[in-house]
Amino acid sequence: MERADKDLAFMLQYENIAWFEDGKVRILDRRVYPREKRFVVCETVEEVAKALKDMVTQSAGPYTAAAAGMALGAYLCRGETKEKQLAFMREAAETIATARPTTAGRMRLITGGAFAAFERALEEGRDGPGAINDYLVSANNMRYNKVYKMAQYLCGMIPAHGAVMTQCFGETIVGQMCRVLKEQGKADVRIFCPETRPYFQGARLTATVCHDMGMDVTVITDNMPAFVMAREGIDVFTSAADAICMDGHVINKVGTYQIAIAAKYHGIPYFVTGAPDQVHPNVKDVPIEMRDPDFVLQAMGVKTAEDGVRGYYPAFDVTPPHLVSGVVTDTGIYAPYDLWRYYESGNMGEYEMVI
Amino acid sequence: MERADKDLAFMLQYENIAWFEDGKVRILDRRVYPREKRFVVCETVEEVAKALKDMVTQSAGPYTAAAAGMALGAYLCRGETKEKQLAFMREAAETIATARPTTAGRMRLITGGAFAAFERALEEGRDGPGAINDYLVSANNMRYNKVYKMAQYLCGMIPAHGAVMTQCFGETIVGQMCRVLKEQGKADVRIFCPETRPYFQGARLTATVCHDMGMDVTVITDNMPAFVMAREGIDVFTSAADAICMDGHVINKVGTYQIAIAAKYHGIPYFVTGAPDQVHPNVKDVPIEMRDPDFVLQAMGVKTAEDGVRGYYPAFDVTPPHLVSGVVTDTGIYAPYDLWRYYESGNMGEYEMVI
Repeated sequence: MERADKDLAFMLQYENIAWFEDGKVRILDRRVYPREKRFVVCETVEEVAKALKDMVTQSAGPYTAAAAGMALGAYLCRGETKEKQLAFMREAAETIATARPTTAGRMRLITGGAFAAFERALEEGRDGPGAINDYLVSANNMRYNKVYKMAQYLCGMIPAHGAVMTQCFGETIVGQMCRVLKEQGKADVRIFCPETRPYFQGARLTATVCHDMGMDVTVITDNMPAFVMAREGIDVFTSAADAICMDGHVINKVGTYQIAIAAKYHGIPYFVTGAPDQVHPNVKDVPIEMRDPDFVLQAMGVKTAEDGVRGYYPAFDVTPPHLVSGVVTDTGIYAPYDLWRYYESGNMGEYEMVI
Repeated sequence: MERADKDLAFMLQYENIAWFEDGKVRILDRRVYPREKRFVVCETVEEVAKALKDMVTQSAGPYTAAAAGMALGAYLCRGETKEKQLAFMREAAETIATARPTTAGRMRLITGGAFAAFERALEEGRDGPGAINDYLVSANNMRYNKVYKMAQYLCGMIPAHGAVMTQCFGETIVGQMCRVLKEQGKADVRIFCPETRPYFQGARLTATVCHDMGMDVTVITDNMPAFVMAREGIDVFTSAADAICMDGHVINKVGTYQIAIAAKYHGIPYFVTGAPDQVHPNVKDVPIEMRDPDFVLQAMGVKTAEDGVRGYYPAFDVTPPHLVSGVVTDTGIYAPYDLWRYYESGNMGEYEMVI
């Protein structure tokens, strides 16, 4: 199975993180990557949903895994009547999309797209899993191209010889940012990655991508961003988002809000990358997922606190629009107060695709 | 050897973290505490300095270890001429005091005090190590009492049924804060401790003290303070300090600055506890210690980032006076812009003692 444009092959090592083949979905276990390269194998739709819930993959990974899960669903219900297949797939789409509540809106775009591709294949008598795989490849290629354009706008905001701070893991945009920085003759831009507790996505994943792309990358602990801004001359703070509400609120990995406050204090702009999410007209509709509190009482599997001490684990936080300098999309940088214009101009988000 | 008032016995498990006995200094290794109870044994002054440099102990621990190191010095030079002993002890005082550059000012108060006690014992023909041990007990008891008074002022700022956020490990004040909260009928105040990477002092030490004192304590990762302020109604942010400069700048464990910015943003007061440091008239005199950058690339001994990725490790950061709501001392709460008044009123810092 071909999975992406040759031009974008450099991205594959991070993007080929989930696929359907031989009746199984394999998902790269990013909880242990890059220390270990291990795959979680799912044979049911429920197992795919559980893998998403268990954070086997993050950033754009869940969207690829979701489509692969839909291909698995199509495989599992083959041979049933058309009605039964459609009912099964409708349920599969919802099971997968709601595995993690905060991102359900965006996930439904993907499982809905996969469902539409399946429905059409069924009508036309084509192979269901194959059609969903094709949809996945096309959707990823479309997204790669959109993110490449986003990266061009983002890098336009980063001065030569400058320094950028990231947060958590925006896989595609991180790779594309490094690529475009080089294309723009800014290969010496320094990148500072807060480690992003409790999963260390910044230390393990973002820093790995940047380093593999040949950039100068420094990992800091999550209590250092303000110090680094004051002492190291950070020019831009940037992150992707799990949801950009149409009212300008950004929902992203916990810590984004705190760094955005520190950026504002230091007069450093914060650019969030990604299309605004039409499915979230305002922030009140988006639940903040609270995860197992005990998970913050360990680091890399080693217990940090005594028994009887509580943990607390919000997966995401909310950054209000007055802390956001701009929303960087594939068609330009929008003020966080003016996001409907993106769709009024006929654009389409990077997770949307006409089937 | 008696080490502290009976009244303050509850503190001993945290305070008896270094002592001189039988020609050796034993220092509780707080890098692994409470998971393991292990002691680093030092037989030379240089080994004591190295233990301080290696962060075997933190918070007020180094001051106790420093005095114990001076007692060891007195033991090692016994039998020499008076001049040789004084020269040896003068050098020992400086070796120990400068083990960590940022806290050298306050450390000199302790090694200087120990030196004065030794010099007097020498004149009076008393036992040198014994005199320094007596000094250490008196100095700690004096400090405990001062900190108890500080805790009363601090807890006066914490509302009933409220919530406090701490930073790093302010051992004596943390224990005394819990004690006084109970005395003031505020035993249900919730305490939130950021874990304090890379050493996890917040998770391992602060939370342990609070829990052992019977308080409701929650550990969060260092990227969560702003979220917790926004969602959980934090009433007061508080920390101890490695140095409070007379110009109102606070030098404390890296992360304090960032939480202070978040507190200001949320309208939450930040109270730093401790006497201002006369030895630091202004912040420019205080070097910020940069530690081994690779240390941030691991957590609890497990590597987090790939080879080739850089680390960055400032031990402390600087919080400017406009982010400090008050300096809580044993004689009241001072505005950070008016710290000389503390000494003009005839007070004495908790690390100073007339010998």
